[in-house]
Amino acid sequence: MVNKPGKIGRNCIIGEDVILGENVCLGHNVIIEDHVRLGDNTVIEENTIVRGGVELFGNSYVGANCILGEHLLDWHKGTPNCTHPLRIGGHALIRSHTTIYGNSEIGEHLQTGHYVSIRENSNLGNHVSVGNYSDIQGEVKIGNYVRLHSNDRIEQYSQIDDYVWLAPGVELCNDPTPPSNDMMGVHIHSFAVVGAKALILPGREVKSDSLVAAGAVVTKDVEPFAVVGGNPAKVIADIRDIKNKKTGEPAYPWRYHFNRAMPWDEIGYEVWALAMKAQ
Amino acid sequence: MVNKPGKIGRNCIIGEDVILGENVCLGHNVIIEDHVRLGDNTVIEENTIVRGGVELFGNSYVGANCILGEHLLDWHKGTPNCTHPLRIGGHALIRSHTTIYGNSEIGEHLQTGHYVSIRENSNLGNHVSVGNYSDIQGEVKIGNYVRLHSNDRIEQYSQIDDYVWLAPGVELCNDPTPPSNDMMGVHIHSFAVVGAKALILPGREVKSDSLVAAGAVVTKDVEPFAVVGGNPAKVIADIRDIKNKKTGEPAYPWRYHFNRAMPWDEIGYEVWALAMKAQ
Amino acid sequence: MVNKPGKIGRNCIIGEDVILGENVCLGHNVIIEDHVRLGDNTVIEENTIVRGGVELFGNSYVGANCILGEHLLDWHKGTPNCTHPLRIGGHALIRSHTTIYGNSEIGEHLQTGHYVSIRENSNLGNHVSVGNYSDIQGEVKIGNYVRLHSNDRIEQYSQIDDYVWLAPGVELCNDPTPPSNDMMGVHIHSFAVVGAKALILPGREVKSDSLVAAGAVVTKDVEPFAVVGGNPAKVIADIRDIKNKKTGEPAYPWRYHFNRAMPWDEIGYEVWALAMKAQ
Repeated sequence: MVNKPGKIGRNCIIGEDVILGENVCLGHNVIIEDHVRLGDNTVIEENTIVRGGVELFGNSYVGANCILGEHLLDWHKGTPNCTHPLRIGGHALIRSHTTIYGNSEIGEHLQTGHYVSIRENSNLGNHVSVGNYSDIQGEVKIGNYVRLHSNDRIEQYSQIDDYVWLAPGVELCNDPTPPSNDMMGVHIHSFAVVGAKALILPGREVKSDSLVAAGAVVTKDVEPFAVVGGNPAKVIADIRDIKNKKTGEPAYPWRYHFNRAMPWDEIGYEVWALAMKAQ
Repeated sequence: MVNKPGKIGRNCIIGEDVILGENVCLGHNVIIEDHVRLGDNTVIEENTIVRGGVELFGNSYVGANCILGEHLLDWHKGTPNCTHPLRIGGHALIRSHTTIYGNSEIGEHLQTGHYVSIRENSNLGNHVSVGNYSDIQGEVKIGNYVRLHSNDRIEQYSQIDDYVWLAPGVELCNDPTPPSNDMMGVHIHSFAVVGAKALILPGREVKSDSLVAAGAVVTKDVEPFAVVGGNPAKVIADIRDIKNKKTGEPAYPWRYHFNRAMPWDEIGYEVWALAMKAQ
Repeated sequence: MVNKPGKIGRNCIIGEDVILGENVCLGHNVIIEDHVRLGDNTVIEENTIVRGGVELFGNSYVGANCILGEHLLDWHKGTPNCTHPLRIGGHALIRSHTTIYGNSEIGEHLQTGHYVSIRENSNLGNHVSVGNYSDIQGEVKIGNYVRLHSNDRIEQYSQIDDYVWLAPGVELCNDPTPPSNDMMGVHIHSFAVVGAKALILPGREVKSDSLVAAGAVVTKDVEPFAVVGGNPAKVIADIRDIKNKKTGEPAYPWRYHFNRAMPWDEIGYEVWALAMKAQ
């Protein structure tokens, strides 16, 4: 059913039992398979493929050459009835050449860069951002307001809590003795920050309000407020002693100093946290 | 010649002198150039381009937005008759957005992730797996049952023997004094394991049954059974002393402890090796 | 206006106010939006999208599945009249699956690998080469004859002068205390070489004729002729003492020993530099 659609490009192919919301626009050569729902005001750019069973809520944008709801391995094996629905909340901004598998649940305000891969059985909260070339390998749980920059690799069984920042090139490992069948995921706690090209070994925890320096190889748990760096990483500072290089003011815990795109954007963390507590 | 084909999608373009085996299925917008052979029961997904001279054996699957048989540089220069055939054995599973150049020879049971690039003059054995974003830069020789995980970079003149595991983010370098014209490839011997984000400098050998720890920068040859780690990497253990973190059992040499998808999958390495010897 | 075009593939879509030079060839399913200019003898391969306002000069080649002139964020916000022209000089060789945003200015003889991303407000000189998966995040200035190998990450506010080489996996950072709004770009000076997987911290300068060793984490400025290595990087040699591993001859400053694809290709740097001086 097409309900007051917007502009539909040339050569589009639309399957059966498809519901397009009001003002949905499709670029040229878009392929929408069966049993797909696209919310109002959503734009799907050229050549993008939306596979069977995808539900994408309204006000979303999907760039060109993407694949949403990509087939799982059982499809290749010819298993009958192997549909794996993918559900993505509204206000998504998914950039070109991104591939997201079926059987995942993703919150509102997802943002991806280009060439992002998100495998099956990934559970992402709201306001998650995943940069260019980042690779979420499935079987992961990622909270709200998490920012993965570019080229991050989140191996299976990783857990990332709310308000975590990963700089580019971070790797969360899972196999302590490769190759093995005994995986141990990394756990990054809320408000932690992991610097560029840092490597977190399998099973390690990076605790709240800690900072892993760029280039660190983390072989032990990182305690709250610790700054660790080097290969292997050692404690090099207390996060509360680090100053902003330009202003000379304390830089951490960052939630007291950085507001952009956070839920406390206009009022600051302290006022917001008090208001949350009062609810 | 189309021989009892399966389902052919809309807007497909099929060149001259093309042989499609029985039950070959093409998704929408697939482009098959001239002189291509696709074996029985092969599936090519949407928007994929199979360039002139590609031979892909049966029971293979190629995801959407791939390019097989990509043009070499002489094509850009307008050289006449510059076809460079690509031959890929049966049972391949090639995931979306992968690009494989012409002039390579790849065995059976190839598996690629998404966004994989394999340049020309690459020789891959059977049962090779190449993860997301991995980049085989050509002029390489890779054996059988080799597993490259994601984001590995195999520079020109690298050699990887059978049963080698590279964790994600590994780099095999080739230029000792960049920029120069005097390349020296890395050689990884059978049963070696290289950990995540390890860097192997040009010309170095990583010998059989050794383990390069995650994050290591390898500046010297790695001897059999050695475990090396750090920047620069030093010997930190004997591989035979490393235990599985969960079971407490020895973890290496891994072939005695890990069977999944190996030729000794059901009988274990020792029985299999004896049987091989007896042949 | 189509001016003596070459071969145009099937299902191409060509917008308004488009000027195709003589002998321009389009592969199948190419999309050319409005107000595009393509110079003579240019080839655009299958499925590639050239967005509104792109100007690509002659004798260029664009591989399949690329996007040139990609939308900026204001387009997603529905800002009217938000065209951002992209201008790329002649003799470009842009490989498949590359994405280049609008609002950038790129010189002649650009070469990209596959899956390259170049964001808006990037200024690249002539003869710049950007390898597979390299990620130019915008707001950068890159000089002439700069070679980025594969998987390099050039964060915003980076500056790279002429004749610089980055080996694969290099990262130029910009945020000293992430997350913050106080970015400090890296500056790489002419004739510097940065080895594989090196990480340059925000605001650092890598000065002329220096060499950053593979795997180094650079936390301080690198002085001319210095070789630095390790994590954190320390001075480990003088560049003038490094020999080519095969010939035993001095390898640096490299401009006296390496000519390929440089402006002094046939005459050597010294003669060329004298001739330049005399002009």
